[in-house]
Amino acid sequence: MFLFKISPVSTARRYTLSLSCPDRVGVVAAVSTFVASHQGWITEAQNHADQTAQRFFLRHEILADSLPFGIDEFRRQFAVIAQPFQMDWKITDSAQKKRVVILVSKLEHCLYDLLSRWQSQELDIEIPCVISNHEKFRKFVEWHDIPFYHVPVTPETKQTAYDKIQYLFTEAQGDVMVLARYMQILTPEMCDRYPGQIINIHHSFLPSFIGAKPYHQAYDRGVKLIGATCHYVTSELDAGPIIDQDVNRIDHTDSVEDLVRYGKDIEKTVLARGLRYHVEDRVLRHGNKTVVFR
Amino acid sequence: MFLFKISPVSTARRYTLSLSCPDRVGVVAAVSTFVASHQGWITEAQNHADQTAQRFFLRHEILADSLPFGIDEFRRQFAVIAQPFQMDWKITDSAQKKRVVILVSKLEHCLYDLLSRWQSQELDIEIPCVISNHEKFRKFVEWHDIPFYHVPVTPETKQTAYDKIQYLFTEAQGDVMVLARYMQILTPEMCDRYPGQIINIHHSFLPSFIGAKPYHQAYDRGVKLIGATCHYVTSELDAGPIIDQDVNRIDHTDSVEDLVRYGKDIEKTVLARGLRYHVEDRVLRHGNKTVVFR
Amino acid sequence: MFLFKISPVSTARRYTLSLSCPDRVGVVAAVSTFVASHQGWITEAQNHADQTAQRFFLRHEILADSLPFGIDEFRRQFAVIAQPFQMDWKITDSAQKKRVVILVSKLEHCLYDLLSRWQSQELDIEIPCVISNHEKFRKFVEWHDIPFYHVPVTPETKQTAYDKIQYLFTEAQGDVMVLARYMQILTPEMCDRYPGQIINIHHSFLPSFIGAKPYHQAYDRGVKLIGATCHYVTSELDAGPIIDQDVNRIDHTDSVEDLVRYGKDIEKTVLARGLRYHVEDRVLRHGNKTVVFR
Amino acid sequence: MFLFKISPVSTARRYTLSLSCPDRVGVVAAVSTFVASHQGWITEAQNHADQTAQRFFLRHEILADSLPFGIDEFRRQFAVIAQPFQMDWKITDSAQKKRVVILVSKLEHCLYDLLSRWQSQELDIEIPCVISNHEKFRKFVEWHDIPFYHVPVTPETKQTAYDKIQYLFTEAQGDVMVLARYMQILTPEMCDRYPGQIINIHHSFLPSFIGAKPYHQAYDRGVKLIGATCHYVTSELDAGPIIDQDVNRIDHTDSVEDLVRYGKDIEKTVLARGLRYHVEDRVLRHGNKTVVFR
Repeated sequence: MFLFKISPVSTARRYTLSLSCPDRVGVVAAVSTFVASHQGWITEAQNHADQTAQRFFLRHEILADSLPFGIDEFRRQFAVIAQPFQMDWKITDSAQKKRVVILVSKLEHCLYDLLSRWQSQELDIEIPCVISNHEKFRKFVEWHDIPFYHVPVTPETKQTAYDKIQYLFTEAQGDVMVLARYMQILTPEMCDRYPGQIINIHHSFLPSFIGAKPYHQAYDRGVKLIGATCHYVTSELDAGPIIDQDVNRIDHTDSVEDLVRYGKDIEKTVLARGLRYHVEDRVLRHGNKTVVFR
Repeated sequence: MFLFKISPVSTARRYTLSLSCPDRVGVVAAVSTFVASHQGWITEAQNHADQTAQRFFLRHEILADSLPFGIDEFRRQFAVIAQPFQMDWKITDSAQKKRVVILVSKLEHCLYDLLSRWQSQELDIEIPCVISNHEKFRKFVEWHDIPFYHVPVTPETKQTAYDKIQYLFTEAQGDVMVLARYMQILTPEMCDRYPGQIINIHHSFLPSFIGAKPYHQAYDRGVKLIGATCHYVTSELDAGPIIDQDVNRIDHTDSVEDLVRYGKDIEKTVLARGLRYHVEDRVLRHGNKTVVFR
Repeated sequence: MFLFKISPVSTARRYTLSLSCPDRVGVVAAVSTFVASHQGWITEAQNHADQTAQRFFLRHEILADSLPFGIDEFRRQFAVIAQPFQMDWKITDSAQKKRVVILVSKLEHCLYDLLSRWQSQELDIEIPCVISNHEKFRKFVEWHDIPFYHVPVTPETKQTAYDKIQYLFTEAQGDVMVLARYMQILTPEMCDRYPGQIINIHHSFLPSFIGAKPYHQAYDRGVKLIGATCHYVTSELDAGPIIDQDVNRIDHTDSVEDLVRYGKDIEKTVLARGLRYHVEDRVLRHGNKTVVFR
Repeated sequence: MFLFKISPVSTARRYTLSLSCPDRVGVVAAVSTFVASHQGWITEAQNHADQTAQRFFLRHEILADSLPFGIDEFRRQFAVIAQPFQMDWKITDSAQKKRVVILVSKLEHCLYDLLSRWQSQELDIEIPCVISNHEKFRKFVEWHDIPFYHVPVTPETKQTAYDKIQYLFTEAQGDVMVLARYMQILTPEMCDRYPGQIINIHHSFLPSFIGAKPYHQAYDRGVKLIGATCHYVTSELDAGPIIDQDVNRIDHTDSVEDLVRYGKDIEKTVLARGLRYHVEDRVLRHGNKTVVFR
């Protein structure tokens, strides 16, 4: 049976199956028949075929209790279906909350916003720790009973600092790293080590205004809309797969300070949306693009 | 095989299967297995389950040439699948363009916009005729080689006029009637005769400002956004199922005339979107709501 | 000299002159000549004439240091200009931060958002206290060194409770009361006592869906956009002057819970914008409408 | 007396005074006192100061009949005010409709849209002629009783063709040239000859995706919003002062053809808005930016 799309605060335990494979006849038939044959209740089903890549993408949410077996047995049996279609697939369990490690510098808006959504369970995640290159938010974070680590970054200590961060991420058993306006550029090695696991919010409507001071660039160009972009971090600066974007209208009366202020509202909203899609396994990457099953 | 979503100007002939039925296990499995067993190439597949109504909705676009039989044989064979699931279903052929009869009064913006999209084949429809209660647009319409009928409407002649319009609609073998800012209220009988076949563009963000002079109502209330709503006409004024809506920001400097002007841009865009969804069989109604598979 | 629009975190002290008067020739000439004659540096100048009300509105921001006298002398001298034009006018000093009393119930999003903007000085206000009918946010608020008052409201204690709130507001020398998703309806007496001083965020695109459970109403009507409205509270429920509104697109896949979630983002953004306009004296009311000089 | 903002179809004849000058005390006082001293009725008054450029901008709409003299006498007397402030100023008469020459290639949407707004007087302009490098729209244009000139452009004939276009523009006493999706790149000489007189609609959200096939570029980059930009043409491709921009949300299901289709709606709306601002003298350029007094 299909149920209505369920918000993440729902207590109904779900398995999320997501996959991509070469595009051919019968993929949906095979998957849906398998699930139906075990009386699986699908709460959401989406699919997409990319013509250019000739690749097919699918996402199913299945009520855990509707199945006669657990996730391990599902994996065992589904592997048989997946093999002939050469599926690149995974299945996750909503009971296993994603562990999100937040990196922040001195700007508060994204941090406050994420913690607000976390404490209200709007974002159904765990935050094992917050890492910052400044002490500024220690008290605020610790007040939420979340460990806070101060890892200073200087040109000299950059390598040590990033080793430390990766150590903390591993220790925290992090699933994803969120750069919540973290004002440091990660090393290519670090980016390559976590493909699709590091999410950044860039304060411009990419590909416009890559790099530093995008609001100043926007002001100088005289654009009439500014934006923000949530994307996966790759070794190429601000060029990773885009998850979500949004914009806000400005005009000639707005100073750079005004742009920065409007931008904060776009940044925190777009970051929260993008993170939400990610932790719900709604984002499938292929090449430098994303399929986002909202 | 899944192909990429194809724009309507594409020449690839497609069958569009759309259905709704009580919500239960196996619907997708049954449909996709049937299509796959005949090597059907699905170019788009969408589905939705309404929790409140406990009803399931599905839409498939299938490449006609990928099937070993024509639409009649498809109907015959699919009926066997549909019966046990109590499906309310239909299948249409993209080679059979929808015949859209346009009703207009004295405002030009929606008419120009629709004819522009029609002549560029952006809207892949046929326009058998345009009906108006004024002569104003006869030459413009006839220049496009589209028959134009002047059907005056006065309180006395209302019934005769609407009988005439229904006669013309039948003669034209119309599939859908579009009220392109047609400034007359249809009789309940006429509305009831064509459920889901009459599309209106209302110049407000329904359910706000029902009835006459919505822009004046909006101005008097001092709202900061105005909108337009594309909906199916029912016997209850401006209360039919909503297909699409959009809004535009205004402020205190805008006069009612400005609101009317901004509104025209929203109206023509929203009407064109809604009509497009309808002629591509993307809109499934249930009760007073719509499922729109974009 | 005109300076560029200055964001509120700027340290440049400014006087804000705002006025309305019957519409006639020479208002701007009189005001600007007065300011110029004292070498006043105007950083922002806006005006508007309402045709219907035949009323003129003006707002000037003047650099305090550019004037040869203080605000009291300004008042004394300007009164001479104002009298013949029958101006309804006031002048405020940016050095005197507005004192904003926040009322909240159990929803966290607006509270977190306002405190985030307050602590970053994006909102250049003072928050003398937070009042709630629940204990839920005491620790969070007190952690910010802001007094928290728990004032329970029951049908029986309603009057006492509101007397208590008004007492606290007076004690706190509050300038404005913000209902940050405060789930209680104020008494008409209380509304009438503070005209233009109580700001509410209503979780619908007014005038649609007045009253309780607007998201449920929106879901049932099947609208394709939902919104939120920031308005001044009057004794008529949800009918006060609108300061700002915004909307977000939804579709058939969204449950009521999804609407609530999207709505939170609109609510906090629109409330923050509206409050900002208010504390910067950018909102001039006339009748049931507002002039907002952004 | 201030009147309400009047829509351009209004018959009230107005003079529009627009100016910019070095930023200093007393500009508004001088201008408003001059107008008031002659009992001038100002229907709109806007101003702006650019901090970076230290330049002040002003626009006044004055009811012609409220003044005791005509536009020539106004020019004579105002020159005395303008001189000491080193004003760069002009005054135009709403009775003199701007003459807009439209250049188009094979895409119909902007042409239909502009003619629709022209014939309904929403755009209060004159269209002395339409010039195209194709014959396609001759009949449609001529049906509107507008002269149509076919000026083919080939690599060899480019110079002759552009000489012909400039000759036709001069003959038509054109005020502004509109490139309504005109698919040819003008020569630098031609761009330099008409600064602020050639308006182009570029089908991307500049500065993203400059040059050819922006929708393909957008598709390849995987952006989640596409846009269009109305700007003045300068000798540097797609780098001129931006008048207006807008965007539309897309997702992974949209093909390049879909992007093109959505884009058309943004293009025609943004072009019409930008042209409207221009012909109402609402756009003041400085450097590569614009002040748009809406």
